[in-house]
Amino acid sequence: MTDIKTEVENAMQHAADAFLIFKKTSGKQRADFLRLIGKEIVDLGDTLIQTVIKESHLPEGRVVGERGRTVGQLEKFADLVEEGSWREAVIDKGDAGRLPLPKPDLRKLLIPMGPVVVFGAGNFPLAFSVAGGDTASALAAGNPVVVKGHPAHPETSLLVASAINKAIEKSGLPKGVFSMIQEDGIESGKLLVQHPVAKAVGFTGSTIAGMALVKLASERDEPIPVFAEMGSINPVVILKDALKNKYASIASNLVASINMGTGQFCTNPGLIVTTKTDGFDDFVLELSKQVSQTSGARMFSNGVLRNYQINADKVLSHSTVQLVAKGIDADAEVVPPAVATVSASDFIKHPQLHEEVFGPFSLLVVCDDDSQLVEVLANLKGQLTATLQAEEEELGKNQALINLLVEKCGRLLLNGVPTGVEVGAAMQHGGPFPASSDSRFTSVGVDAIKRFVRPVCYQDFPDHLLPLELQNGNPLSIWRRVDNKWTREEI
Amino acid sequence: MTDIKTEVENAMQHAADAFLIFKKTSGKQRADFLRLIGKEIVDLGDTLIQTVIKESHLPEGRVVGERGRTVGQLEKFADLVEEGSWREAVIDKGDAGRLPLPKPDLRKLLIPMGPVVVFGAGNFPLAFSVAGGDTASALAAGNPVVVKGHPAHPETSLLVASAINKAIEKSGLPKGVFSMIQEDGIESGKLLVQHPVAKAVGFTGSTIAGMALVKLASERDEPIPVFAEMGSINPVVILKDALKNKYASIASNLVASINMGTGQFCTNPGLIVTTKTDGFDDFVLELSKQVSQTSGARMFSNGVLRNYQINADKVLSHSTVQLVAKGIDADAEVVPPAVATVSASDFIKHPQLHEEVFGPFSLLVVCDDDSQLVEVLANLKGQLTATLQAEEEELGKNQALINLLVEKCGRLLLNGVPTGVEVGAAMQHGGPFPASSDSRFTSVGVDAIKRFVRPVCYQDFPDHLLPLELQNGNPLSIWRRVDNKWTREEI
Repeated sequence: MTDIKTEVENAMQHAADAFLIFKKTSGKQRADFLRLIGKEIVDLGDTLIQTVIKESHLPEGRVVGERGRTVGQLEKFADLVEEGSWREAVIDKGDAGRLPLPKPDLRKLLIPMGPVVVFGAGNFPLAFSVAGGDTASALAAGNPVVVKGHPAHPETSLLVASAINKAIEKSGLPKGVFSMIQEDGIESGKLLVQHPVAKAVGFTGSTIAGMALVKLASERDEPIPVFAEMGSINPVVILKDALKNKYASIASNLVASINMGTGQFCTNPGLIVTTKTDGFDDFVLELSKQVSQTSGARMFSNGVLRNYQINADKVLSHSTVQLVAKGIDADAEVVPPAVATVSASDFIKHPQLHEEVFGPFSLLVVCDDDSQLVEVLANLKGQLTATLQAEEEELGKNQALINLLVEKCGRLLLNGVPTGVEVGAAMQHGGPFPASSDSRFTSVGVDAIKRFVRPVCYQDFPDHLLPLELQNGNPLSIWRRVDNKWTREEI
Repeated sequence: MTDIKTEVENAMQHAADAFLIFKKTSGKQRADFLRLIGKEIVDLGDTLIQTVIKESHLPEGRVVGERGRTVGQLEKFADLVEEGSWREAVIDKGDAGRLPLPKPDLRKLLIPMGPVVVFGAGNFPLAFSVAGGDTASALAAGNPVVVKGHPAHPETSLLVASAINKAIEKSGLPKGVFSMIQEDGIESGKLLVQHPVAKAVGFTGSTIAGMALVKLASERDEPIPVFAEMGSINPVVILKDALKNKYASIASNLVASINMGTGQFCTNPGLIVTTKTDGFDDFVLELSKQVSQTSGARMFSNGVLRNYQINADKVLSHSTVQLVAKGIDADAEVVPPAVATVSASDFIKHPQLHEEVFGPFSLLVVCDDDSQLVEVLANLKGQLTATLQAEEEELGKNQALINLLVEKCGRLLLNGVPTGVEVGAAMQHGGPFPASSDSRFTSVGVDAIKRFVRPVCYQDFPDHLLPLELQNGNPLSIWRRVDNKWTREEI
C-alpha cells in the first residue's frame, strides 16, 4: 500500500503533467468531457443511488434529485465552455499612428491557473463532492483536479471517481486530469494544499476547517487562493405587515425549510428576526404547532449528529434562551427540528448565539421595535443569504434595512426561503466573511469558473498565433469587448 | 498634534460613515467626481509639476506625461462607471410554472466592498500614488479610500490630496470618502491594514513590503484581499532569426527601455535571454556600445539609490557574472545603466541572480541552445511581463516556448519592450506569484475596478426596488447577460 505522502505526490505530479495537455483542449473538447462524466454517473444507475443512501441516510428522492443536479451542473459548465464567451475576451486595437507614441494592440482572455485541490463536502455527497460544482468548474476552465474525498461517503466517492476516470479514458485525456485521495485523517488534505503544484483550493464545510485551509495556503512560499464556503445562519427578517397578514404561511414555509435535508444545508434559515407586533403571538403559536408536528430524520453521520447535539444544547441551555418547540422525537438516531427564542437585547449581548448550529435548528430573535431589529442585523457577521418576509407595500419605507442586508449577504431573497440554491448564471453563493473566505466569488452557478482562471494579455501578436478567442475573425463567434464595445462581430 | 493611532482611527471611521452615502451615488455622480479630481489636479498647475520634480528627480517631460496619465486614468474610470456595464448585471428570469419547483427570479450585479487602503507607490508619484490607479479604481466602484502617502514625496502627496478634497467638497460628498495619512515609518500602514473597517488593500512596491502586508491582512480576524504588485524581472527572449537579423535595433530598444525612468519601472527588462548563435557577438557588441554611450539620471531617493547599489553589486560581484558595459559615469548622484552577462547553467544554478535589481540594470543570460533557453525560462518565477523578440516566421515552431511564457506572465509582448504600460480595458498588469499577490486581477486599466467589488444577488424582488442596473426596462442601457444571452435590450 502506498503511503499518503507518496499518493499526494503522485497525484499532484500527474496533475502538473496533465495540465500541459488539458489546458490546450478546446471548449468543445472539455464540454464533451464534462457531459461524458455526467453520462457515466447516470450509468452507475441504482448502485450509486443505493450507495449514497447507505452512506448518507438521505431519502431516495433527495439522492435522485441531487444526482440530477450534479449532472445538470456538469452540463451547464459544458454549455458555458462550448459557447466560449466566459473567457471574457477584451481587445484594444493598436494604432501605429498615435502620437506621441504608437498604441500597441492588446488582447486579453482568461486562462486556467493550474491544478486545483477540491475537498469533497459532507452535506452534498454528489453535488458538492467528487464530481460536484468545484470539480466541474475547475475542469471546465481547463484545470486538472485532485479531490480529497470526504470520509463520510468513501464508497460513493469511489464510484463517482470511477465515472470520471472512465470519461477521461474515453476522451483520450491524460489520467492526471483527475485524481482522488481518500483518507479518514487530515494529513493528505494538508499535503495537497501545501503542494507547490496546487494553484487554488475549493472547499465547503465548517469555519474551523475552512480557516485552517486558508491559513495553510497563506503560509506557503507561494500563497494560493482558497475558496472556502463556510458557516452561515441565513437571517430571515419578518416585517410588520407580513407578520400580521401572512404569519401562518411564513411559519409553515420556514419550518419546512429548517427541516429540509435535516437542516444540513449551508443556507438553512438558522435565524428568524421579527418585532413583537400584531400577529407575533399567532406566529409563535403557529411555528410551535408546525414544529411539534414535524418528524426529523437521520443526519449524515454520527459525527454530524454529535456536533449538532453539542451546538444545539449550547444555545438551548443558555440562560437567555427558551425553547419554542421541538419536533416528533421518534428514536435516538433521528433528529427532529427545534426552534428556540431569545430577546434582541440578549442576542446582541451574546455573540455565541450568532454561531451556526448545523442541523434542523433555528433561533427566533424578538425585537421591541424597528430600531432594535436594525441593531440586531447590524450586529451580524457576513452571511450567504438574508431573507426579507414583507408585503411589497412596506418595502419602500424599509430601504435602509434593505441596504443593510445587502451589506451583510451574498444573496438577498424576498418572501422565499434560503434553501434551494438555483444553479444559474445569476446565482451568488458566497457572502462577506465569514460566510465565505472570498466574497468576490460564487461556488454555485457558472460564474464559479471565475475562481480558477486568470487573465493573460497578448501584445502585438500576429493574428494566426493568437488563441482563437482573440483572433480578428472571431471564429468561435463569442461575445467580446472590442475597443470598449460589446460585440460578436469580427474585426 | 494627533498621534498616528488616532489619525488612523479617525480616517477609517470617517471612511465607514462615508461608505453608507458614497455607495449609493450613481455612476454619473462618481464619474463627475473623478473628472473633477482630474481637473483639480491640472489646476494645481506648475506648482505640482515643480514639486514632483523636486521630490522625485524626474525630468519635467516625464512628470507632465505622468500627470496626463493620472488624469487620463481618472477619466477612463469615469467613462467606465458612467456607461455602467462594468457592473456585470446578470439576470435569470423566473418561471413560476417550472416543475417540480418554480424557478426564482435571480438578478446579480457588482457592488463596492467598502473602505480600501491604498499605499502610494514610490515610483509613480502621480499615476500610482495618492490619486493613482488604485485610488481611481476604488473610488470609481464606490469605495472610500484611505491613502498611506509614500514618504519619498510628501509635498506632492499633500497637493494631490488637496485636489481630491476640493473635488469632494464641490461634489457635496462626505469628507470621509478620502483621507490620507503621512508618516515616515510603517506604523500607520500596519494599523490601516489591520483596521476592521478596511475591506481591501492596494499596493505597488517591493516583494518584502508587499508580502508583509499580505501576511498582516491574512492574520486579521476577517482576512481581506491585498493586491500587491511586487517585483518582476520581465524576461526578454531573443530567438535566433531575430538575433541574426535585428540585433542592432533590439539592442538599442532594450537599452532605451532599461534606462527609461532610470530603470525605476516594475516592467523594466531586467533579464535578456538568448542563444549563442549567429548575430550573438554583434548583439553583445552593440549592447555594450549603446550602454556605454548612455547617460543615467538621479534615482527617486537616496534609499532607492542605496538599494540599487547593494543589489547591483550583489549580482556584479557574483563569481559567475561579467559586466558587459556601464553607461556614462557623470557624478555620484547619477546612476548610469549597466548590463552584465552570465551563462545559462550558472543562472539556473544561482536563484539569487533571478531577483529584481530595481534600477537601470539588466542581466544577459547566454544559452548554448534552444533546450537550455527553455530550461532557463522554466526556472523563472512568475513575472508581470515576458517579451519575445522574434521574426514572425520562427514563431510557429516555437509554440511550446510561447505556451511556457504564457504560464509565467500576465502580459506577453512580441517585438516590443515591456516598459510603457497602456491604460486600457485589455491591459493585464499583474502576473503569477511573486509578480503580484493575486494573478487574477490587474492594477492597470479599467478592469482594476474588479479588485474592489463583489457580486450580490437579488431573488424575487419587485422591479421598482431593484438597482437600476437590474430593472426590466434597463434604464441605464447597459450590457447585461439575460438568460445567458448578452443584450442591451429591455426585458
